Amino acid sequence: MAVPSSVVITDVALRDGLQIQPRTLPTATKLGLLDTLLAAGVRSLEAGSFVSPKRVPQMADADALFPRLPEDEGLELIALVPNVRGANRALAAGVRHARLLVSCTEGHSQANTNRSVAEGLEEVAAVLERLRPAGVRVAGAIATVFHCPFDGVPPLAQVDRVVGGMVAMGLEEISLSDTLGKADPAHVERVVADMRSAYPQITFGLHLHNTYGMGLANVAAGLRQGVAQFDAALGGIGGCPFAPGAAGNIATEDVVFMLQAMEVETGIDLARLAEAAGYLRTALGSPLESAVSRALGWAA
Amino acid sequence: MAVPSSVVITDVALRDGLQIQPRTLPTATKLGLLDTLLAAGVRSLEAGSFVSPKRVPQMADADALFPRLPEDEGLELIALVPNVRGANRALAAGVRHARLLVSCTEGHSQANTNRSVAEGLEEVAAVLERLRPAGVRVAGAIATVFHCPFDGVPPLAQVDRVVGGMVAMGLEEISLSDTLGKADPAHVERVVADMRSAYPQITFGLHLHNTYGMGLANVAAGLRQGVAQFDAALGGIGGCPFAPGAAGNIATEDVVFMLQAMEVETGIDLARLAEAAGYLRTALGSPLESAVSRALGWAA
Repeated sequence: MAVPSSVVITDVALRDGLQIQPRTLPTATKLGLLDTLLAAGVRSLEAGSFVSPKRVPQMADADALFPRLPEDEGLELIALVPNVRGANRALAAGVRHARLLVSCTEGHSQANTNRSVAEGLEEVAAVLERLRPAGVRVAGAIATVFHCPFDGVPPLAQVDRVVGGMVAMGLEEISLSDTLGKADPAHVERVVADMRSAYPQITFGLHLHNTYGMGLANVAAGLRQGVAQFDAALGGIGGCPFAPGAAGNIATEDVVFMLQAMEVETGIDLARLAEAAGYLRTALGSPLESAVSRALGWAA
Repeated sequence: MAVPSSVVITDVALRDGLQIQPRTLPTATKLGLLDTLLAAGVRSLEAGSFVSPKRVPQMADADALFPRLPEDEGLELIALVPNVRGANRALAAGVRHARLLVSCTEGHSQANTNRSVAEGLEEVAAVLERLRPAGVRVAGAIATVFHCPFDGVPPLAQVDRVVGGMVAMGLEEISLSDTLGKADPAHVERVVADMRSAYPQITFGLHLHNTYGMGLANVAAGLRQGVAQFDAALGGIGGCPFAPGAAGNIATEDVVFMLQAMEVETGIDLARLAEAAGYLRTALGSPLESAVSRALGWAA
């Protein structure tokens, strides 16, 4: 089984993880969590989203949070920027790394953003126009690539159309999301192989959820197809509030544990991740549900 | 990704699943659970173990249970038979399918059976001598093939020695167990590929636990190496009482869900498995922890 020798894990607990929590964490608590993640060796993370505070109140403090992030060239502290209004806020907050999201399917695109897929791509282009001149490093992300709660499985031609749209704008990194956690490993391999062969110049990442327990199987499938960037959330928290049936992200600690066993370098120290997990559990006031957190006694 | 078009799932909830539960289920409750599993299309299952009732009181009713099992040529209703005394009990109870277990490592062999690995293989030979003349269909199973709580990772030569010992006795089906759930998919592929190449005439199965969340990744790894028999326990219950750190089996419903998505035939109906899960949850008096049971609302 040939796999990359090292991978980047982007922890999305602060964004995808917290956006669905009943309890909105104070900015200082988020910054404390971020510190524990960095101390464990995490070098890439989503810190927040410039989405409308009315739609996702858990992310309302992005304007206050981003200016307080550490400045370190080696860190990728990413903001999700959903539209031009969000881009203006992100620029004012000094964001250096942004992710622009579009849905692969019409149903989720409407539910998530009130826009068609084509309109979503136009908005991405408009956001790019704002962020690029300011030197912000931008990556693309595509939701519901494998399954949509409204439209089912998008055909490969539809995935290709959305990926192609982002590639045409000059995006070089694109993350493919299994928003519902319903993709199986053969499905992941098919889509990734197809996209890597159609767009060999693009760096593809995977954003996986563990709803049906297939998360790590899909990481292994991605690795096998050469994917070396995976999103994951500490504690396996998260889910999309506008995708019924979605549940937690794959857990950072589960991914690190597996990659460590496979001798794939992540730069993340599992023992120090225990401290981050402890911080998160206390902040949320609820037990963590990841396999490794339970097995190693970090959960409760 | 080339995988077998159909696989046999052996449900081990009644044996590996129940042996670690604090509550010992009455025989009638076990028979009721077995009925729901059969109704869902399960055709192979471990129904109990003829282990010493002092060591595993949850299995003490095997002598009463096996005579009450349905007689159907198409069913594989398996008893774990750990020693000659157990073989005598199994024969008296009319057992038609047996599994004989040996540990791959000295540490687990001593903790589990008070015997060395070599003595374990001798006991298997003695049990075979009792069961074969009675026409009992016998398969082998090897614990701690990937990790041992006492001895760490057994070298491939050690796995080969134990598999070779069982092959020399004429066993044709051998299940390789990841007792601790610590194997990663690359490890599973290495061992399975090596064993299949060394013993092409043997049908290898996999017995996987989900302690660290890698269970389905390891199913996918096994499928890729041609494995078409997997143990799994309804609800993801189970674990070895004599292997510290072991946790639940991979869940039957999780495996069925993934294989269904991959268009691999199992003969098991997921909707009817929900009824079995409901029965189990009520019998145990505790929520189920499998991903599919939670996602589909069967758990609580």
